[in-house]
Amino acid sequence: MTENLFGHHISQQFNAELEGLRHRVLAMGGLVEQQIVAAVKALVDGDSELAESVIESDHRVNAFEVSIDEQCTQVLALRQPTASDLRLIVAVIKTIADLERIGDQAEKIARMGLKLITQERPSNEYIEIQHLGERVQQMLGLVLDAFARMDAEAALEVVGKDEKIDLEYEGIMRQLVTFMMEDPRSIKRSLDIMWSIRALERIGDHAKNICEYIIYLVKGKDVRHTTLEQMKKAALGER
Amino acid sequence: MTENLFGHHISQQFNAELEGLRHRVLAMGGLVEQQIVAAVKALVDGDSELAESVIESDHRVNAFEVSIDEQCTQVLALRQPTASDLRLIVAVIKTIADLERIGDQAEKIARMGLKLITQERPSNEYIEIQHLGERVQQMLGLVLDAFARMDAEAALEVVGKDEKIDLEYEGIMRQLVTFMMEDPRSIKRSLDIMWSIRALERIGDHAKNICEYIIYLVKGKDVRHTTLEQMKKAALGER
Repeated sequence: MTENLFGHHISQQFNAELEGLRHRVLAMGGLVEQQIVAAVKALVDGDSELAESVIESDHRVNAFEVSIDEQCTQVLALRQPTASDLRLIVAVIKTIADLERIGDQAEKIARMGLKLITQERPSNEYIEIQHLGERVQQMLGLVLDAFARMDAEAALEVVGKDEKIDLEYEGIMRQLVTFMMEDPRSIKRSLDIMWSIRALERIGDHAKNICEYIIYLVKGKDVRHTTLEQMKKAALGER
Repeated sequence: MTENLFGHHISQQFNAELEGLRHRVLAMGGLVEQQIVAAVKALVDGDSELAESVIESDHRVNAFEVSIDEQCTQVLALRQPTASDLRLIVAVIKTIADLERIGDQAEKIARMGLKLITQERPSNEYIEIQHLGERVQQMLGLVLDAFARMDAEAALEVVGKDEKIDLEYEGIMRQLVTFMMEDPRSIKRSLDIMWSIRALERIGDHAKNICEYIIYLVKGKDVRHTTLEQMKKAALGER
């Protein structure tokens, strides 16, 4: 079914346009994924050059957003799509807004990395950031796969992962508070770690938003603000 | 010019639909504004009942988003708008996403309010939250006015306000860090205050996003990720 979702156009040209649009979203997603990996690595390794390059590259993410957005408006105006084509365009408009914000969070992590270089390294070598960063990056990778394959079921699975990330986030936060109270000299550093952990948690939220757009796109059902149960029904049910 | 921006349709019915859509966005904006005011008041006064009612009302904000979004998709499918009508629809889709996230931040502030009730009140009676809350609420009010009047110039003015909010935010944060280091027993409370201040700052960012959509809507120029100078040129220039 997935192969045929956009295979019903008389206009080969229009098909190619939609396909091109999807590829550009995936290219933007790939760039954003790289930004997360590089930002986390820069922070954990204390690599200021890498951190600077992440900050410097954010404009590329922004340029993607503006240009894909413009392309969507053009398709809407010139092709006047309906049904699943229209849903694709709306889903793309929303998806790239979340991808752009994920890029902002990666930039924030890189900036925290630069600040943390000036502080004493913690004895755990930022293992919590490393770990949560890997989870979040993996989650985004799965979301992009689900988008590429227009796979609502896969998108639904990723939503479940966000709940685990939230739990892990809460745990790390509690630990950091305890640490701050035990050793007030570590407050500044702990706060910078907190903001980084927070940014990773926000990336998970954005990735979850994209999952909801994929379910909407494939199934035609808006599952935002619903329970996981309701989402399951929408993602696994027939259109 | 503003009166005529959508006054060129042959179809009176279509005009009425677009007008209705704009009114619903403003109604959603009004609800979100109330949520901010109530959340800040609940936190500052330690009013748990009010805080609960903010948390409980968030579903109304969400319902607005889903329903306006659906209406936009319907207009796109059935009316196949172009030019400024199409820009209105795209701007509405983006605006309600930001309004919904402002609602989430208000809910977050209410939740922090509930946590803070269990802590000793600070000697400054949360004056910083009160103050920043008023600024942010005023900013959102101006954004909604600019949206109602389709006034790019007014939207531009509000963007300038966000920079002031960011500066104030930085100042409060620095103060809180100092306070935490001086009195580690206040760490938990200070962190809850930080998250609330952070939520207010995020609301300012979302309000700024909406300003950018208004400029795009009225002037047809995408001013995201540009400098304030470039925005000025777009907002004050002719189409």
